[in-house]
Amino acid sequence: MNTMKFLRKKCIVFSKRRIKSNYCTFTNNHLNETGSTGSSAEAARWPRRVVSALQPTGALHVGNYFGAVRRCVRLQRRGEPLVLFVADLHAHTAPQDPAELQRRSLETAAYLLASGVDAERGVLFLQSAVPAHARLCWLLACLATQARLAHLPQYRERAAGGDAPLGLLLYPVLQAADVLVYRATHVPVGADQLQHLQLTAQLVRTFHHRFGRLFPTPAPLLPDDGSDRIRSLRDPSKKMSKSDSDPKSRILLSDGDDLIRLKIQKAVTDFTPEVIKNIELVDIHMPPSSADALVQVSFDPAARPGVSNLVTLHSLAADKLPEEALEEARGLSTAQYKRVVADALCGALRPVRERAQALLARPALLHELLRHGAARARALADPVYAEVAARAGLAPAAPR
Amino acid sequence: MNTMKFLRKKCIVFSKRRIKSNYCTFTNNHLNETGSTGSSAEAARWPRRVVSALQPTGALHVGNYFGAVRRCVRLQRRGEPLVLFVADLHAHTAPQDPAELQRRSLETAAYLLASGVDAERGVLFLQSAVPAHARLCWLLACLATQARLAHLPQYRERAAGGDAPLGLLLYPVLQAADVLVYRATHVPVGADQLQHLQLTAQLVRTFHHRFGRLFPTPAPLLPDDGSDRIRSLRDPSKKMSKSDSDPKSRILLSDGDDLIRLKIQKAVTDFTPEVIKNIELVDIHMPPSSADALVQVSFDPAARPGVSNLVTLHSLAADKLPEEALEEARGLSTAQYKRVVADALCGALRPVRERAQALLARPALLHELLRHGAARARALADPVYAEVAARAGLAPAAPR
Repeated sequence: MNTMKFLRKKCIVFSKRRIKSNYCTFTNNHLNETGSTGSSAEAARWPRRVVSALQPTGALHVGNYFGAVRRCVRLQRRGEPLVLFVADLHAHTAPQDPAELQRRSLETAAYLLASGVDAERGVLFLQSAVPAHARLCWLLACLATQARLAHLPQYRERAAGGDAPLGLLLYPVLQAADVLVYRATHVPVGADQLQHLQLTAQLVRTFHHRFGRLFPTPAPLLPDDGSDRIRSLRDPSKKMSKSDSDPKSRILLSDGDDLIRLKIQKAVTDFTPEVIKNIELVDIHMPPSSADALVQVSFDPAARPGVSNLVTLHSLAADKLPEEALEEARGLSTAQYKRVVADALCGALRPVRERAQALLARPALLHELLRHGAARARALADPVYAEVAARAGLAPAAPR
Repeated sequence: MNTMKFLRKKCIVFSKRRIKSNYCTFTNNHLNETGSTGSSAEAARWPRRVVSALQPTGALHVGNYFGAVRRCVRLQRRGEPLVLFVADLHAHTAPQDPAELQRRSLETAAYLLASGVDAERGVLFLQSAVPAHARLCWLLACLATQARLAHLPQYRERAAGGDAPLGLLLYPVLQAADVLVYRATHVPVGADQLQHLQLTAQLVRTFHHRFGRLFPTPAPLLPDDGSDRIRSLRDPSKKMSKSDSDPKSRILLSDGDDLIRLKIQKAVTDFTPEVIKNIELVDIHMPPSSADALVQVSFDPAARPGVSNLVTLHSLAADKLPEEALEEARGLSTAQYKRVVADALCGALRPVRERAQALLARPALLHELLRHGAARARALADPVYAEVAARAGLAPAAPR
């Protein structure tokens, strides 16, 4: 297929970067990215399959890139069978402008490809194009209790202070369907989504109890490079977020070099108590630039979340360990270090941005690629749903 | 198609009974069964389509027969375009034995056909065989608020005193999807389901507000023959129900003549105050048979729900108005009248039962018929869902 060849060729070019293997072994009974070398007894019974998704709400930022997109690319390059989709059904848990949603879905797919996702080795598609997600969601909703769902922290946060749509309560159930319908053995998540994967595990148990064994219990793959903990550039007490009202709080994948530099330059940093004492001793009215000169960069996410966030971004963008990034910061003021961080980010994001722009200039090609991906996803999901239906006493599958 | 010819032939035979037109005009802004002659301005903009469903939970009883099955048959015979399905997805809002559910689904379809549903003129299928129901349900769940759903009386009744599954809250949303995905203009309901149809109307308004006009607002078709108010034979304060623990509380469509007679004979009746006074005057120890002799049959659902229920059953089974049934009861004791009611019920139900048994002896034929119906239902529902998806900014439909 011509479009596939075109994209595969692109992907080969994209994948020439050195892949740093900063993954380590088990933590807290969850698998981290090395799950491939040591997997649980449960997962070992099933063919490995990694399932992941990105919501097409708002423009992608570096938090999404390092925390989700690049993780998927690297998992795939390590040989993991990857099912990856743009979660356009999930997007509707908040009101959406349809044209904007459609544009964002295409854009998200373009950034995934531009980041190196190989749509031929894996499967890449739009969630709404595969009916089995919503169909399995209904059945799982009959196995989930409302009380359990209403206690999930993400729900409580989003539903707070309003008459929440039912979709918000149902959302983790659709997430469970999303991965189970592909018999996922592993799901890359951030720490804040572990509870949703625990709900999935509970739904698997309930399903097995009622209808017999059918699914692996998907194990979470947790990053250990800090990529799930990237903070807002304006208020490091918050995660970097698509929905933050201040656009300077995040660096978008579509931001040009100048804008990246500006946002890093304006990023909030934090002083250690020693620094503050030194500043007071020298001159209470010392201008910020002179104060900066006294600040040493250090990595302490609890005490200095702003500076540590820059170190994390630097280490991720330059593919270094935080200690290596700190080494480069030695002797630099915060202001000077910010230029190093901005350079690393520009270097990492520029090629992705340029490839994505090239892809977005060819929407017909992207649509064709997603249609092809959806057909392949249906070929995986439909037989699983057919087996679910048979187990649950529902209608036999239609002959294809 | 041979199976279709076979069934059409059967249906023509089934349809020779006189159809009594005991329908009248508008009540309380809802259309009753005469909706065909005077329809609302809203409904008039759309091609008429009646959508109805039966749950395959438990064996069908006369309440289901007169209140749902026969109503659909008659609507169809009056020329209404009928989309009718067995709601096997809804069944899962309570725990189901899968094999039993599958058996009941087939049985429900057989009774629908045996009652005279014409599967070629209308569309008959199992709900779970048409993916668009669950797909539209997700999107509607994002438009429905939890508070609105939690206030529906049927939910509050079923969820009372337990940790309710989410499916129970979601159930009226799936009902809305069930009818909207066929652009239903009319939905036959009982009075107890009017609120669910009001929810559907609200979801239509919200959808139109967000994504533009796409659906008619389905108008309820309410029966005016009492067929939605058939009471338990053992406790007339309750509706006849599949889930009542006392099997004598209901007459099943599968019950033989002897069992029908026995259950009617054991049916609880009620005395008017005058009767009780008369009994006391004559002899406090008078045996029940003698007391019976003093009881005149009357129709007063509030004061004498048990006897009135018998009159309703009689009028429905014999296709008479309640006044005509009462005329026949004149001079009869309750015991004597019960024999008249049992005769009428046996006469009405025997041919349905016998045809259903003949159909159930040919499960392959039934399966083929339902598969054929599902393909036709998908051909109706898929383009509507494709338009929904396009309006909501979701993935374009896969080429068929």
